[in-house]
Amino acid sequence: MQGTQQPTAPHADAYAPTDRTVPTRSANRASYDKELVHAILDEGYVCHLGFVRDGAPVVLPTLYGRVGERLYVHGSTGSRPLRMAGRAEPGLPVCLTVTHVDGLVLARSAFHHSINYRSVVVHGIAHQVTDPEEKRAALDVLVDHVVPGRAADSRPANAKELAATAVLRLDLEEVSAKLRTGGVNDEPEDLALPHWAGVVPLRKAYGTPLADADLTPGTELPGYLADL
Amino acid sequence: MQGTQQPTAPHADAYAPTDRTVPTRSANRASYDKELVHAILDEGYVCHLGFVRDGAPVVLPTLYGRVGERLYVHGSTGSRPLRMAGRAEPGLPVCLTVTHVDGLVLARSAFHHSINYRSVVVHGIAHQVTDPEEKRAALDVLVDHVVPGRAADSRPANAKELAATAVLRLDLEEVSAKLRTGGVNDEPEDLALPHWAGVVPLRKAYGTPLADADLTPGTELPGYLADL
Repeated sequence: MQGTQQPTAPHADAYAPTDRTVPTRSANRASYDKELVHAILDEGYVCHLGFVRDGAPVVLPTLYGRVGERLYVHGSTGSRPLRMAGRAEPGLPVCLTVTHVDGLVLARSAFHHSINYRSVVVHGIAHQVTDPEEKRAALDVLVDHVVPGRAADSRPANAKELAATAVLRLDLEEVSAKLRTGGVNDEPEDLALPHWAGVVPLRKAYGTPLADADLTPGTELPGYLADL
Repeated sequence: MQGTQQPTAPHADAYAPTDRTVPTRSANRASYDKELVHAILDEGYVCHLGFVRDGAPVVLPTLYGRVGERLYVHGSTGSRPLRMAGRAEPGLPVCLTVTHVDGLVLARSAFHHSINYRSVVVHGIAHQVTDPEEKRAALDVLVDHVVPGRAADSRPANAKELAATAVLRLDLEEVSAKLRTGGVNDEPEDLALPHWAGVVPLRKAYGTPLADADLTPGTELPGYLADL
């Protein structure tokens, strides 16, 4: 049966690894699979965006959204990275990182303590979105990334609001995922130690929605929120 | 009574703002209060560490711990930022950012959607810790940051493990917190719109600890885990 196997096809479903997306350590935890990368990105909405200012790194938390092979971040036209991307030709070099923490891995040895996580790191050049239609669609995606279905259930941005908002686009080209899953990896000689060992799962939990005090009486909690 | 007030004392309890810790936008959300910064840092254990490699930004998730006015991160001696910090004299310029997402702010207008969050951004130069005692203490702090009390209930690192681990120190000097709290800030003319508006609180939830299959029979779940 082995002889009937096809050689591995070119990875149309994977990002091509580059020097900076191949980790120097734990390379077995890295993945370039597009489906996995998309799933990790779609589960979150807060990224950490890195850029260089005066030669030094800056890392800021910000919201993001995905449309196909494009990520969008937004901000006030007055914010630092947005202004820098507007000035910079041909765009602003960035590193956009998304991380989900899934569990605490408590080994018998301090050394083998770890975290189960899934992260995506995107390297690239961010460009200001100037097309009004793309900008409006990107802002809808940003809202829907946080709460799916919400964009259609809110007042759309007006011209003044659109003008006050800048949107950056970052193409998914130089991308890697990295993840750790599973249990503890203690040394064999440590297994008999008396310390508890195992994994404490973590998840994000939503509390009860708190309605605005000025809410129009009779406004019901929408289904997309009740389902969270 | 006003006449008896003392002039504001020099802020021994606050970090001095600098050009890069004063945000260009929403400056009213920024704080330099040490107690607040410490509280935000102590609530987390995963940071996003930014550094510059070949002129481009890199942002990686990693664990951190705090001792007084010092932060520590660790990694394999083979990992990229650790090697870079070891090579670089006098250290590696970094930006270390910690973010807690506390709630989703759903306004009636798409434009006023927001996130309640607390973040700390630390700029500085990371140095490799060479003192063995400081290194050992830092590693204990890293474990205890994730699960308080755990370091004492695990096998300490041996000489080989210590040699394989590099620790970076980053002093808390150029630091700011930024936070958004509270409810929706809709425009007055939007208040009568039929869209639900309010805040969905978020929190981190711990699942039931999953014991390692090889756990020594009779090993009970320690109290510091049951209390999580």
